[in-house]
Amino acid sequence: AAIEGDLDGPADQLTVAEIAEHPFGQVQFTGRRWPLADVRLLAPMLPSKVVCVGRNYADHAKEMGGEAPASPIIFLKPSTTVIGPNVAIKLPASSERVDFEGELAVVIGRPCKDVPAAKAREVILGYTIANDVTARDQQKADGGFGRAKTYDTFCPLGPWVETVLDAADVEIKTELDGEVKQDGHTAQMVHDIPALIEFISHIMTLLPGDVILTGTPAGVGPMRPGQTVAVSIEGLGTLTNPIAAR
Amino acid sequence: AAIEGDLDGPADQLTVAEIAEHPFGQVQFTGRRWPLADVRLLAPMLPSKVVCVGRNYADHAKEMGGEAPASPIIFLKPSTTVIGPNVAIKLPASSERVDFEGELAVVIGRPCKDVPAAKAREVILGYTIANDVTARDQQKADGGFGRAKTYDTFCPLGPWVETVLDAADVEIKTELDGEVKQDGHTAQMVHDIPALIEFISHIMTLLPGDVILTGTPAGVGPMRPGQTVAVSIEGLGTLTNPIAAR
Repeated sequence: AAIEGDLDGPADQLTVAEIAEHPFGQVQFTGRRWPLADVRLLAPMLPSKVVCVGRNYADHAKEMGGEAPASPIIFLKPSTTVIGPNVAIKLPASSERVDFEGELAVVIGRPCKDVPAAKAREVILGYTIANDVTARDQQKADGGFGRAKTYDTFCPLGPWVETVLDAADVEIKTELDGEVKQDGHTAQMVHDIPALIEFISHIMTLLPGDVILTGTPAGVGPMRPGQTVAVSIEGLGTLTNPIAAR
Repeated sequence: AAIEGDLDGPADQLTVAEIAEHPFGQVQFTGRRWPLADVRLLAPMLPSKVVCVGRNYADHAKEMGGEAPASPIIFLKPSTTVIGPNVAIKLPASSERVDFEGELAVVIGRPCKDVPAAKAREVILGYTIANDVTARDQQKADGGFGRAKTYDTFCPLGPWVETVLDAADVEIKTELDGEVKQDGHTAQMVHDIPALIEFISHIMTLLPGDVILTGTPAGVGPMRPGQTVAVSIEGLGTLTNPIAAR
């Protein structure tokens, strides 16, 4: 479906318009429409892969005790981590500290490989919001991203894909129970979106619906059961998820 | 399709029998059969994820300059890394050293989560052979598995899935241009297959066709364009791939 209305305005004035097939290529509308409040949004994509970029904001690299790397550091989340808006992030009993990481997510629109930065815009369908949920203690213990990033529910995506955003300099903000924890701008990325697409597509073929998480600004921190985490991006909206024990 | 005959015997005596639908659950044969020599085998699975285990043979952990970890260290390869038998492994120009890593691969047969080790056998469809191709210089430079493990063609799988193998103690051997480079036994795994399935399925839901690479024995080394790499597992057969520059 497509969302119609002002994404930065009140949600009760948004409309959901059904599309006939998939969102890649020319979209056909069926003519059926509902108020957003009457619809439950699922994750906007079921990606074949989610490629994440580590330490891509200098202030976050610093809070993690390091510097931003000269080349992007990438890792993967499996499709089984993906949940939609308002679905609970489940904290595994095996971790003592599970953190939020609000991020801008790029959604790929067509199969591509070896895309030069100058042509990156052509392969982007649009943007959505992600929370790169992380078992921080396990990341430190393992010295790597594998287990810490791959638990079921550790990749909330949504609430929708915005296809006309200029994502080069928008505010990105994470609130925990209404308290602002992260507040950055995408212009602070060490490697910008075209550079990331060039780098990643040199390594692997990207497929329609694949998602790139572009890194998180400073301010990451732990979540507890019963809390609610909300990531907002200017021009995109808000991705909200409750936290629960597994 | 299903392979009929002695997998450790001459390949020209094997037959390929077409099956009606997918290989999960009770298999129906269509009755059509061909000699193996008349068929081009593709990768036996298109996994939604390939979960790999690092340093799971103590002698390989030692050659990498460390010890085998107390808990399994996991990482992911995306589906875009998968190729079948006899398809070329392409060496990216960005790496100076791309290594073979012969591995036993477990193929998951049903959706599952939180599988105790004692019940692991119930979720296994069978076994195949994998080559966990690795850009070793990039693994060292990045201090992680992301980029080094995820190039297109970096996960040869095949030649087929063996559904009746006892994989607990079989020989695993890698030859480069006919010279034996790795020669181990699956019994040398630090974390055995049931333990790996318990560990991984605690983290993430496994889906039919998902593949777990169980680690590589000592003897890993670089490949050059024009060479041929062959991984053989007792009772399973041989996975052969030529090497090419990209």
